[in-house]
Amino acid sequence: MLPIAVDAMGGDRAPGEIIAGARQAADELGVPVVLVGRPDAIDAAGGPQGLDVIAASEVIEMHDDPAHGVRRKKDASLVRAAEAVRDGRASAMISAGNTGATMASALLRMGRVKGVLRPAIATPIPHPGHHPTVLLDAGANAECTPQYLVQFAQMGSVFAARRYGIERPRVALLSIGEEDTKGTPLVKETHALLTKTPGIEFVGNVEGRDLIGDAADVVVTDGFTGNVALKTLEGALKFLVGAIAATLPAESLAPLLPLAADMDPDSHGGAVLLGVDGVCIISHGSSTARAIVNAVRVASEMVAADLVADLGDAVA
Amino acid sequence: MLPIAVDAMGGDRAPGEIIAGARQAADELGVPVVLVGRPDAIDAAGGPQGLDVIAASEVIEMHDDPAHGVRRKKDASLVRAAEAVRDGRASAMISAGNTGATMASALLRMGRVKGVLRPAIATPIPHPGHHPTVLLDAGANAECTPQYLVQFAQMGSVFAARRYGIERPRVALLSIGEEDTKGTPLVKETHALLTKTPGIEFVGNVEGRDLIGDAADVVVTDGFTGNVALKTLEGALKFLVGAIAATLPAESLAPLLPLAADMDPDSHGGAVLLGVDGVCIISHGSSTARAIVNAVRVASEMVAADLVADLGDAVA
Repeated sequence: MLPIAVDAMGGDRAPGEIIAGARQAADELGVPVVLVGRPDAIDAAGGPQGLDVIAASEVIEMHDDPAHGVRRKKDASLVRAAEAVRDGRASAMISAGNTGATMASALLRMGRVKGVLRPAIATPIPHPGHHPTVLLDAGANAECTPQYLVQFAQMGSVFAARRYGIERPRVALLSIGEEDTKGTPLVKETHALLTKTPGIEFVGNVEGRDLIGDAADVVVTDGFTGNVALKTLEGALKFLVGAIAATLPAESLAPLLPLAADMDPDSHGGAVLLGVDGVCIISHGSSTARAIVNAVRVASEMVAADLVADLGDAVA
Repeated sequence: MLPIAVDAMGGDRAPGEIIAGARQAADELGVPVVLVGRPDAIDAAGGPQGLDVIAASEVIEMHDDPAHGVRRKKDASLVRAAEAVRDGRASAMISAGNTGATMASALLRMGRVKGVLRPAIATPIPHPGHHPTVLLDAGANAECTPQYLVQFAQMGSVFAARRYGIERPRVALLSIGEEDTKGTPLVKETHALLTKTPGIEFVGNVEGRDLIGDAADVVVTDGFTGNVALKTLEGALKFLVGAIAATLPAESLAPLLPLAADMDPDSHGGAVLLGVDGVCIISHGSSTARAIVNAVRVASEMVAADLVADLGDAVA
């Protein structure tokens, strides 16, 4: 397998935790990993730990405008990571940096899979004791057409099958009621199209309360609604976990650690940008070394499963 | 004060818990309450407990189509409750029944406040230790224009001021980033309008993670996004509370009871339909007697504060 390109400069804990994660991934998984970033910053953080480095002199910061950043900083680490995939020097890219810039780099440098109208961010929503529910689009496209959403259903279905081994993933449409008369024109038109789309197991509408649960394996929505839902969910869980931790004595909390680990996005390897012509993993900005290990695992599995080719078949 | 009309037939625990709550409200708050519903059903549940009854022979069930239900069942309890407000026999209405039918009854029988384009559902999102954040629209209007959202900001601001005694409520717009360049055309146009709207304290965009928290007192969005966000939040909290309760021994859970009570929608008196020409409280379908007591309290406070007149002034 070609190495997996890890953006050493992306994320709140970059480069230290990112390099540590990349090194652990190489050791634990036996997967080749190449760091992409500023050699001086990597050296200052303890060096590349024996990993190869693709040098990139610039960094697109978290607060940079994505499109502007990618256009101006041509030697940015995540631009170089995307080019490495495009040029056959890497099999996949991973970044915990600026999400918009990661998308833009992947889209502009790798291009889209043939037939895909718009790439979408597929985010696993943890459901302890079960496989996660795949939510897409989690924020790549604020505005969508019914045709985009049908493709999200097709791509999400392929991804859930490859990622979680689900034979025939149940695909649902996010709405404000189970009835097909509920929702916006976008939702109603998409509902009608999905009932007629071959190759997917469409189970109808679900509501926000079904995102954590067993109602569906894949939930499709536009990137505005998906992003609001995802951040609402993260905010609610973070609030409640914080409030509980502040209320209970430490010894009472110990039994909750496995649950907390299951709910932690770090455990799930990040979101995947589906529809670009290469495997691209978007990790949480707060990613730890453990998150990077899991991202490398997911990336290598998706490369091995030839996810990208399957996505092209799904929308063909 | 005119009595507050409580739909005895609405909610998962109707009529028993609803009647009990209405009775408790009258006793504890000294507020007159009138039950609306089928006399036989009220009698079968132990009678009206000394409260007056407005007889209504029909019930719009939870699964009934709202518009169709209101059109066909002219003697339905929630239609009669709305008529009682319209006709000056009640000062406010409360229902834990079919939300859509409650909105339709209030809108068709009471009408809109002069100048209001669309009524909106304002839902308090609990934030333990602080006053709740008011989210609107939580589901009345799946499709909105920027002008509707500006009015939601105006009405939400008045409601937060009256309900929580906030002198100058901070109003935010729900989006997928703080920058005013983020979001859908609806969000961007609304953002531009809100910066120029006098009489409100617009603090910019917030994200889903800010719904529980102190970033704003009022959060404005369209009814599709608002409903998805609200149900996502409810689902996330319900899941986590259930998972924790299943993991920890009962004695560890005791310190969490005050937090659970603060987070319980029953503690907050339900959502308010802002913009109809009368006070209309939409309680949770699972409302207990305690929820009804709190709904009566909120209704009586909003009547006393002359909320409806203030809403008219706000949008004038």
